[in-house]
Amino acid sequence: MMKLYSSTTSPFVRKVLVVAHEAGCLDAIEPLAGKASPIQADMAIVATNPLGQVPTAIVDDGQALFDSRVICEYLDAQQGTGLFPAGAGRWPALTLQSLADGILDAALLARYEQVTRPETLRWEPWLEGQMGKISRALAQLELQVPAFAVQLHIGTISLACALGYLDFRFSEFAWREGHPRLADWYQTFSARPSMAQTVPQG
Amino acid sequence: MMKLYSSTTSPFVRKVLVVAHEAGCLDAIEPLAGKASPIQADMAIVATNPLGQVPTAIVDDGQALFDSRVICEYLDAQQGTGLFPAGAGRWPALTLQSLADGILDAALLARYEQVTRPETLRWEPWLEGQMGKISRALAQLELQVPAFAVQLHIGTISLACALGYLDFRFSEFAWREGHPRLADWYQTFSARPSMAQTVPQG
Repeated sequence: MMKLYSSTTSPFVRKVLVVAHEAGCLDAIEPLAGKASPIQADMAIVATNPLGQVPTAIVDDGQALFDSRVICEYLDAQQGTGLFPAGAGRWPALTLQSLADGILDAALLARYEQVTRPETLRWEPWLEGQMGKISRALAQLELQVPAFAVQLHIGTISLACALGYLDFRFSEFAWREGHPRLADWYQTFSARPSMAQTVPQG
Repeated sequence: MMKLYSSTTSPFVRKVLVVAHEAGCLDAIEPLAGKASPIQADMAIVATNPLGQVPTAIVDDGQALFDSRVICEYLDAQQGTGLFPAGAGRWPALTLQSLADGILDAALLARYEQVTRPETLRWEPWLEGQMGKISRALAQLELQVPAFAVQLHIGTISLACALGYLDFRFSEFAWREGHPRLADWYQTFSARPSMAQTVPQG
């Protein structure tokens, strides 16, 4: 069993759950409710992970594992499912994960700026800087889709979770506009049971 | 050869350079000057990495690799140096890297708040939230030192780069106070040529 500090809205938790689903070990995960916040740390989580972030995992021997990249790779290695490819295919898959995680980091910072920070202390250039990263990433991904379209690995899983988060929290951003190939790819990918059963709630 | 968008102050670039040094392939890296900023993107970098971050690598076949975790693992795999351990030792090493990177992410956000953002728009609870992550991480690491003290791997390299960054940008934070074992460990580790030759400049 793996205990997993989780929230139903975290896109990084979703990555772990999608990997667990695809690797056939979802039943071996026991979720623990966690409340990650950049302002108010969750004291239960920080006892294990001083960063206070979800997802944080605790495996059978009591060892803590984080962040999402580490937990995902651990589950994949335990199950031998090859979602973290070996050989030459590893580097584009890991770089795609990094790009998707970068979209999510930017989106979370944008959300903290727009929602968490008091209105009088918001700084437009910061928000624009974060949203600019997302826009440029989408533009590059639109060109890359043919290269990864039919692949299932940690890169495509991360990308799908990132796009799902844009739908969940930034629907007015309308990411599909101008990115028809990416939208098509996501429509197919998000129909996978692992994605359909982990749609964010909140 | 690997081209590497770099800056002399980035702790994430330092991770890559320390790994390259320890893996014996520093000569195969051609640095390209990059100016990563959360507000003003570097147009040369974003052509390769839409996130506009350093380090971003370009390898022989033109493939882009990022972020620092991916580039470090790539160099280690090319050289076969085992800085990313296989087997059971992999997960604590990767989790230590994640904790060290989390210290750095928090430190960079704190610096953007204190230096980049206009003074009238700063929000103390945000700054305290970031510095709280760093303080809690140091307290946990002080207890963990015996477990990793003599090891050289991506976790200890990342931690040393994180502590070096606190010295560089947060000297008034005086991280050694209350953390004597961590301070001793760092004193030994930072004497390695790979660390001594990559001290941040700026």
